[in-house]
Amino acid sequence: MNPALNYCSTCGAPVSQRVPPGDTLTRAICDTCGTIHYQNPKLVVGSLPEWEDKVLLCRRAIEPRCGFWTLPAGFMENHETLPEAAMRETVEEACAQVEIGEMYTLISVPHISQVHAIFRARLLSLEFSPGIETLEVALLAEHQIPWGEIAFRTIAMTLRHFFADRKTGRFGFHTADLRPEDRNRPSHP
Amino acid sequence: MNPALNYCSTCGAPVSQRVPPGDTLTRAICDTCGTIHYQNPKLVVGSLPEWEDKVLLCRRAIEPRCGFWTLPAGFMENHETLPEAAMRETVEEACAQVEIGEMYTLISVPHISQVHAIFRARLLSLEFSPGIETLEVALLAEHQIPWGEIAFRTIAMTLRHFFADRKTGRFGFHTADLRPEDRNRPSHP
Repeated sequence: MNPALNYCSTCGAPVSQRVPPGDTLTRAICDTCGTIHYQNPKLVVGSLPEWEDKVLLCRRAIEPRCGFWTLPAGFMENHETLPEAAMRETVEEACAQVEIGEMYTLISVPHISQVHAIFRARLLSLEFSPGIETLEVALLAEHQIPWGEIAFRTIAMTLRHFFADRKTGRFGFHTADLRPEDRNRPSHP
Repeated sequence: MNPALNYCSTCGAPVSQRVPPGDTLTRAICDTCGTIHYQNPKLVVGSLPEWEDKVLLCRRAIEPRCGFWTLPAGFMENHETLPEAAMRETVEEACAQVEIGEMYTLISVPHISQVHAIFRARLLSLEFSPGIETLEVALLAEHQIPWGEIAFRTIAMTLRHFFADRKTGRFGFHTADLRPEDRNRPSHP
């Protein structure tokens, strides 16, 4: 979540909520220095590391969804590329070295103003361990995936695409939009 | 560019630049209320509208690159999906109705902390006109593209992919990372 936008980060004066000239949406505008404060969606970037017939998953040590399983992923930082973000998150969350491959899923999650991007990746060694935000790292075969304990729908959707594509031998690039009302539908029809 | 981050947007007190516990990067942290202010890359999303053998381009009425040609694109807004952002920008910049197709290019531009995403699109009618940030909208065939007057390298790269792919009849999904040092290299090797 973004912090509250009550004051101007440039000069410290209070802001008003109004539509700037030529714009169509309400923004936080500084009444003193005139700075317009835009808020925009964030990219969450990660990897799907493969080792033989297994994939690497992390059990989260932090909220949201503490204790649930996910792929190594997190907020993209300024001044990095998408593959760099995927590799950094894999190191941070799983202390794992990977070779980042093709972008695999790109999913808009508009109700939380996020876009989730997951790359396929090749795990380079069996040396991995939980990072500070992770309780446990595991290599799991398809039949071992804890489907009821996956932290996020974008991650479940990515894993479902992966195991379906692997059966056909053809890995596409998958895009989707996930809305709250999709919650009770199967994430991969 | 992001506004300066001197004050806390939540409580108005000054912020310090330091590394939060468990983090690895310097962030603006409020000395009074403790809020951590993260800054993350922004998504620029747009479309490549096709009509017969032509594509729709816009000549920019605003900086940066005022007077140069681009595809209709702009900053993704909170609470929208990638295709919704592409369609909205096409309406805003070219007053054009399109059917948004597949995502076509996704390019990281790390030195300006942006990711540019362009969708293929089908122009639905010849009713288009300049929006408030546009000087001129034109349908141009390949030989009419003003290559020396394209506003951004990501847009030139997208157009080069498009005309190359069209010759083969196979439109892939293209990803790339564009850095400042790539500036003098051809954008499509």
